[in-house]
Amino acid sequence: MKKLLNRPDDVVRESLEGLALAHPDLLRVSFDPVYVARAGAPVSGKTGIISGGGSGHEPMHAGYVGRGMLDAACPGQVFTSPTPDQIEAATRAADGGRGVLHIVKNYTGDILNFEMAAELCQAAGIEVASVVINDDVAVEDSLYTAGRRGVGLTVLAEKISGAAAEQGWPLDRVAALCRRVNESGRSMGMALTPCTVPAAGKPNFELGPDEMEMGIGIHGEPGRARMPLATAAEIAAHMTEAILGDLPFRAGDRVIAMVNGMGGTPLLELYLVYRELERVLGGRSIAVARRLVGNYITSLEMAGCSITLLRAGDEMLSFWDAPVVTAGLRWGA
Amino acid sequence: MKKLLNRPDDVVRESLEGLALAHPDLLRVSFDPVYVARAGAPVSGKTGIISGGGSGHEPMHAGYVGRGMLDAACPGQVFTSPTPDQIEAATRAADGGRGVLHIVKNYTGDILNFEMAAELCQAAGIEVASVVINDDVAVEDSLYTAGRRGVGLTVLAEKISGAAAEQGWPLDRVAALCRRVNESGRSMGMALTPCTVPAAGKPNFELGPDEMEMGIGIHGEPGRARMPLATAAEIAAHMTEAILGDLPFRAGDRVIAMVNGMGGTPLLELYLVYRELERVLGGRSIAVARRLVGNYITSLEMAGCSITLLRAGDEMLSFWDAPVVTAGLRWGA
Repeated sequence: MKKLLNRPDDVVRESLEGLALAHPDLLRVSFDPVYVARAGAPVSGKTGIISGGGSGHEPMHAGYVGRGMLDAACPGQVFTSPTPDQIEAATRAADGGRGVLHIVKNYTGDILNFEMAAELCQAAGIEVASVVINDDVAVEDSLYTAGRRGVGLTVLAEKISGAAAEQGWPLDRVAALCRRVNESGRSMGMALTPCTVPAAGKPNFELGPDEMEMGIGIHGEPGRARMPLATAAEIAAHMTEAILGDLPFRAGDRVIAMVNGMGGTPLLELYLVYRELERVLGGRSIAVARRLVGNYITSLEMAGCSITLLRAGDEMLSFWDAPVVTAGLRWGA
Repeated sequence: MKKLLNRPDDVVRESLEGLALAHPDLLRVSFDPVYVARAGAPVSGKTGIISGGGSGHEPMHAGYVGRGMLDAACPGQVFTSPTPDQIEAATRAADGGRGVLHIVKNYTGDILNFEMAAELCQAAGIEVASVVINDDVAVEDSLYTAGRRGVGLTVLAEKISGAAAEQGWPLDRVAALCRRVNESGRSMGMALTPCTVPAAGKPNFELGPDEMEMGIGIHGEPGRARMPLATAAEIAAHMTEAILGDLPFRAGDRVIAMVNGMGGTPLLELYLVYRELERVLGGRSIAVARRLVGNYITSLEMAGCSITLLRAGDEMLSFWDAPVVTAGLRWGA
C-alpha cells in the first residue's frame, strides 16, 4: 500500500486536523465525537443542514461545510458510517433553533445511524427532518444498500438546500426542496481501477488490464457489468443514456451537469468526458445550464468518473448560483 | 493504458473542447494555433499575462485563465513545450496595449520557444517581459532543464502577478513583482507512482512496491533519491527542511504554503500532509499566513505531492487575497 500517511488507524483524525489547520476561517473540527462544524455555528435563526458518511470521498462532506452549504458534517472512518453520537453532536452543533435537515446517502449503515441520531435529537427537543439521496441508476440493490445508492447528486442537494437555508427558508421547505432535488436527478459511475482502504491495505476489488467496471459504487461495490475498456465517447454515452432514460429526462430540459472524478483521474480526462457528455445531451436537445467538472465525491485514489444530471428550473438554478464559501466549492463571495 | 480518452493523439484538443464548453463565461479556446484566452481578452489598458507549457499538469495553466490571473495560456501536447506560434498567438490575444508578461517555467524547450515568440511579438510592436520560474530545490540540473526546474511556485506567481496586473500595474512593475515571487519561494515534490503519457502508452518510470522518488519532477524526471517508503511525517519533514534551508527561510517569516497533489493522491492524504507541514513550520517559528491544499499543478495520475513555500509580506498577501475567477482557483468574487 502506497499512501501518504503515518498509521492507517490515524488517517481520518490526522487528515481532519490538517483540514482544521488549513481552513480556520471556514470551519472547526471536534474530535470527541468527531464532527466538523461551520465557523460560528450554530447560526441563530437559520435552518441547520448536516450530512455525513464514511471518509474517503473528500471533499465530500467536510469540504462542503461553510456558508451557503452545510452547517456540519460527521465523517466516519474510511468507507464506514458515522456513529449515532457523531451525528447527534453534529446536529446539536448545527441547530440554530429552527431545526436541522439530515441529508443521508442511501446506505444501510448511514440510514440506521442517522435514524437513531434523529430520535435522540428529537427527544432532546431539536426538530429534525431527513432526506435520503438515492440517485444511482446503476443497480437497484447493492452491497451495503437496499434500493439505490446515494452518490453524486448528494453534492448538488447539499449546495441547493444550503442556499435555501441560508436565505431563511424554514426546515419543512428546505427538506421539500432537497427531496425535489433527489427526485429530479440521477447519476452513474464507472471505474478503471480499484482503490485501497488504508486499514485493509489491499485493493478493494480486482480489474483486468483491459477491463472497466460500469456502474461502480463509491466504495467499489459492483456495478452493472464488467466490460472491456471502451473510449471516452462510448463510456459517456453509456452512462448518459442510462441516466436520461431513467428519470426520464426529455428534450427541452435544462440540467445542472456534473462530471466527477473518482480521485485518481486527471482533470485532462475529466474535461474530455465533459465534451462527450455535452455531445450526447446536445443530440437529445437537453441544455446544460450549469456544470461542475472535477473531483467532488471521490473514492480515494480510484480512477474513473461519474456523471450526475439534475433537471433544474429557475428556482433551483438561482439557489445553485447563490454564494457558497467552503473548502470544496466556492463562488459568488 | 487505462485512461478516459478516445484516440491518444486527440486528448489535448478534445479536453480543451470540453474546457471551453464547461467555462464559456471564463474563457474561449482557439485551435489553430492552440491557445486559451480569457473571455473578453484583450482587456484594454491592462498589462497582459500569459503562461504555458506542456499539458498534463491541469488545472495549470488553462485553468488559471480568467479575471485576476492569466489573460491567456498556451498548452502544448502532454509534457511537451508549446510552439512559438502558439505563444505568439496567446501573447497577441493578451495584449491590451500595455505589453504582456510571459511567465515561463524553467525547461529548455519552454525557454527557447518563449524567447522566440517574444522576439516575434516585439518585432510586431508588442512589448514583452519574461520571468523564468525555477523554484524546485530538488536538483540543480535535470532532464529537460539547465538549472532548477519550475514547479509549484508558478501557481503562486500567476496569482500574485495577475492581481497586480488587474489593479493596473504597468508591465515593468508586474514583471519585477513576479521576479520577487520567484526569489522568495521554493518547492520540492515526491512521487509514490509514475504516470503514463497517453501517446507513450506506458509508465514514464518504474518504482518498486516499497519505494518512493524524493525530489521528483513534474514530468517524472529523477529527483534526489529513490528511498524506501516513509511516513507522511517523515516525507513532509524531509521536503520542508530542504525548502527551508535553501532560501533560507527564517524564524518569524510569514509564508503562503501550498500542499499540492500530483494528480492521483486523495485529498484525505493531502490534508494529512498539510498537518505535518504545519508541525514542521511551527517548530521553526514560521507562520502560515495563507495556504492551498489540493491539486494545482499535477502530473497526470501520478500519486505523490509537492510542497511550496513563499515568504510573503503584506503586499504579496494583499495580492494573494484579491479576487480571482478562474476554473482552477476562485475566491473573493
